[in-house]
Parts: sequence; C-alpha cells; structure tokens
Amino acid sequence: MRNLLQRPDLYSINTATLGFNSPLPAIIDACAQRGIGAIAPWRRELENQHLPDIARQLAANNMAVSGLCRSSYYTAPTLAERRRAIADNQRALDDAAQLNAACYIQVVGGLAQGSKDLDEARNQVKEGIRQLLPHSRAVGVPLALEPLHPMTTADRSCLCTLRQALDWCDELDPDGEFGLGVAVDVYHVWWDPDLASQIRRAGKRILAFHVSDWLVPTNDLVNGRGMPGDGVIDIPAIRQWVENTGFNGAIELEIFSSYWWQKDINHILDISVDRIAHYC
Amino acid sequence: MRNLLQRPDLYSINTATLGFNSPLPAIIDACAQRGIGAIAPWRRELENQHLPDIARQLAANNMAVSGLCRSSYYTAPTLAERRRAIADNQRALDDAAQLNAACYIQVVGGLAQGSKDLDEARNQVKEGIRQLLPHSRAVGVPLALEPLHPMTTADRSCLCTLRQALDWCDELDPDGEFGLGVAVDVYHVWWDPDLASQIRRAGKRILAFHVSDWLVPTNDLVNGRGMPGDGVIDIPAIRQWVENTGFNGAIELEIFSSYWWQKDINHILDISVDRIAHYC
Repeated sequence: MRNLLQRPDLYSINTATLGFNSPLPAIIDACAQRGIGAIAPWRRELENQHLPDIARQLAANNMAVSGLCRSSYYTAPTLAERRRAIADNQRALDDAAQLNAACYIQVVGGLAQGSKDLDEARNQVKEGIRQLLPHSRAVGVPLALEPLHPMTTADRSCLCTLRQALDWCDELDPDGEFGLGVAVDVYHVWWDPDLASQIRRAGKRILAFHVSDWLVPTNDLVNGRGMPGDGVIDIPAIRQWVENTGFNGAIELEIFSSYWWQKDINHILDISVDRIAHYC
Repeated sequence: MRNLLQRPDLYSINTATLGFNSPLPAIIDACAQRGIGAIAPWRRELENQHLPDIARQLAANNMAVSGLCRSSYYTAPTLAERRRAIADNQRALDDAAQLNAACYIQVVGGLAQGSKDLDEARNQVKEGIRQLLPHSRAVGVPLALEPLHPMTTADRSCLCTLRQALDWCDELDPDGEFGLGVAVDVYHVWWDPDLASQIRRAGKRILAFHVSDWLVPTNDLVNGRGMPGDGVIDIPAIRQWVENTGFNGAIELEIFSSYWWQKDINHILDISVDRIAHYC
C-alpha cells in the first residue's frame, strides 16, 4: 500500500468538498499551492470557463483530473427525457476529454418520477450506459459506474452495490473494449459484507477511489458526510483492498457537508491534506 | 398471493407503530376491536405486565404474537457486556415463550463503541447467536435475524442484507435444527438488487414479514418511515415473492415515525388497517 504521508501529489480534491463557492481557477490555484496532484470538478463549474485555459492551468501545475462529476440521471418517465440525458452525457464526455479526465463519474438516478418499479429504473440505466459507451470510447474517457449508498435508491441511484456495478460491467462490456469500470467511494460501500470480495473481483475495473467518513450519528442523508478520521469507516483497510488490485490512481476526497461548507476554502484544504495523510 | 381485503386477521401491528404511549392491554383491546390478528410487542412493554394475563387476553381475542421485539445488541467492547446481552436475550426468550411468540426478532447491533472493525462486530454477533440458539430451541421460540438498512450499520445493525442473514443461518444452523430464520422488512431490504433471489433462497427461513414505506425525501434515518402507500416501495411485489416461498404468517406493520406518533392510537390503527388492505 502506498505511503500517503507528505505525498499530496497522490491526492485529489473533489470540488464538492469545497461547497462550490469559488471559481475553478481559484480552486486549482489553492490546490496547486499545497502540491495536490488532482481535482475532480463538477460540470456546473465548467459552464463559464474556457476549457483549454483550465487544461493549461492544470498542466502548468502538474495537476490531473481524477474524474468529471457527474452524469445526468438516466431514469425518467419519458423516452424523450432519457434521450436528452444521454445527449447531455455525450457533451459532458467531450468536456471530460478536453480535461483529459481519468473517468466520467456515473451517478445513475433513482426511481423515475412517479414510479415504484426498480427493475424498470435499472433497465433504463443500463440502456443509457449502453448507448453512451461508444462515445466514451471515441473520446477516450471511460465511464465509472458509482454505486451509491442504498439510502439514495429512491432519488439518486438505483445502482446500490459494487456487486451490482460489476455485474453491469460484465453485461455491458464483457470484453473490456469500452473500459467500463467502477468508482469505489468508501462512504457508499463501507457497510457491505461483500465488499472485500467484490473489490478483488473488480480488479482493473476500479477507475476512481473516493474517501470521506460516516459520522455517528448521521443527521442528513446527503450532506452529513464527515472528514476522514471523524467517523467510523476503516478507510485504510478499504484502500489496502483497492490498491491490492493494482489501483494507483488518486485518493479523492469527496465530502458533502453543510458543516464544512461554512468554512473557508483554505482551511478546508489544509485539513483535507492532513486528514488524507493520516486517516486514509 | 393472499387477498388482504377485509382480512385484518392476517395483519399484525408492531407496537412501535403506536409510539409506546399506551399500555399493552389497551393496545390489545384496540387491535381486537378491529379484528387484527396479531401484535408484535416490545420488551419494554412487558416489564410492568403479568405475562399470563397478557397471554390470556390475547387468546380471548384470538390474537397471536407475530414476534417479540427485540434482542439486546450483541456487539460491545468487553466480553462481560457481551455475556450480559446473551443473558438478557435468554430471559427475553422466556417471555417470548410465555406469549407463544412466532419468533424473537434479532436486531444485532452495530460497531462496538470506539471500534471501526466491522468484521469483529459481525463475529461478535455470530458468537452471540450461536450461544443463544440452544435456549431458543429449548423454549420453542425461533430467532429471526433481521437485516437492517445499511444506513444503520454503524449504530444499530452490522447485519445489512438478506444474503448475509441467510449466510449466517447456513453457517450457524445448517441442518435447521434450531429453526434459525430471518425477518424480511421491506423498509430495510427494498433497495437490494439481490432481493428476489435471496427471498427465493430463504424459503422456509422466513419467520416474519414487516411492512412500512420509504418516503421521498426521507429526513430522518430512524424515525422517518412512512405508512404503506405514502412512499415508493412496491410492497405487493415483495409480498408476492415472500408468499411464493410458502410464508403464511402475519403482515406486520412496523413504522417508526415522529409524524404518526403524534396521532391518536385509534386513528393510527384505522389508517393502518386501511393501508395494509390496499397497499400491501
């Protein structure tokens, strides 16, 4: 397992951690000042930016993009809406390619509005991914299926476990020709009794590794995540399993937290660097 | 699948649904007035009761006990605490036997205080169940392992999926000599992509079937459950799978809800009967 001490070049900051209060160039500068090796931006942050400038700024600071967040949801009541999501996701892949992103993160959507049919939702997602894969290969940015915590099933992700994500990879990209893979976020999967064996199974399918912590008590299903060390997830144990597969990508910190979002970006980044070093 | 319309004799009310504001004899009377066939009481409600009187009151109303809630947690930092939990659970089994309960519900506990070791927690639970099984057989009340929603892993249940519960059944009671089984609560398992196949696998291991609904949005990880019909769970689909195994026990309504707990017990029961009939 890699030693993370004084190796911020191995870290990535998912910009959601910073609460979307600063423009992307300022975030890149603040990360670069700390030697952080990568960021994972969100599409909304790219909207008012000239992407070649962002790419140049990153390159000038030896920084990479560990992933672009995130897909438009594939689940919707009408075919027209589902087609629009796929077209959205194709454009996002173009942006991801301009930034040389390691992957495009797939948060797939929950139940379609008004529906209780989980099977149908899951089929809609698989159909959407299937249609997006050729463009993913064409632009050279692989899709990373991210299973989200089961508490998000209704409204964010009907993809709930790593086993399910890998089953979809095997079904949609059996030969690996599209490089379809998974994102392992400890917050979403730490509880899974099947986790160690599914990480072993994942092997080279692991395209991203996200960290944060589960607080006790957790008072918000979305924005109640903790900084590594403040909760109960044994992050190093999970990282060990992930790195045993050969994964050598960034350790990406992604925290949705109404607590941390009140803090100054420089303070969040200082704490982030320290916590990744000591609790991941 | 059984038709539930005008068959309150097939329903059970888990007393947690009523907010623990009424003494058990009053709850039994209120359920009996509606023809409800069973209740699932909590241990705290038995403390100030003479159990033979409760048993007589139930029998006089043709009512059964679909389960006694619930086990003391098996996970704890010290062996002395873990032994105390097992002794507690043995006494609870004695009470369950006096009430002729269909099962003793096992909510197993999360991480031990101060620990991040999920494997250790799971081993503590299995060791506790293993030690309790002979007493369960001796008094004739089977243990029902209840997987809880993964969002409870840290502080309530390191048993998170039906697959895991059935793996434990196979490990701890391979020949079925102890009648070790599972409780299927739709709120805890509805999200599971593996649910249909694990219910099939469960077969005769299903000792209890609990219903409530997942609200969107859910604002509380514990007390935010919904009345059937108010959320997104396809309860009849899951009941169909459960009854396909041969299960013919009670349809037990168990709702933890700070909303419903503000209501009068008679109002809650009227709505409960109506919702079980039409949305389960």
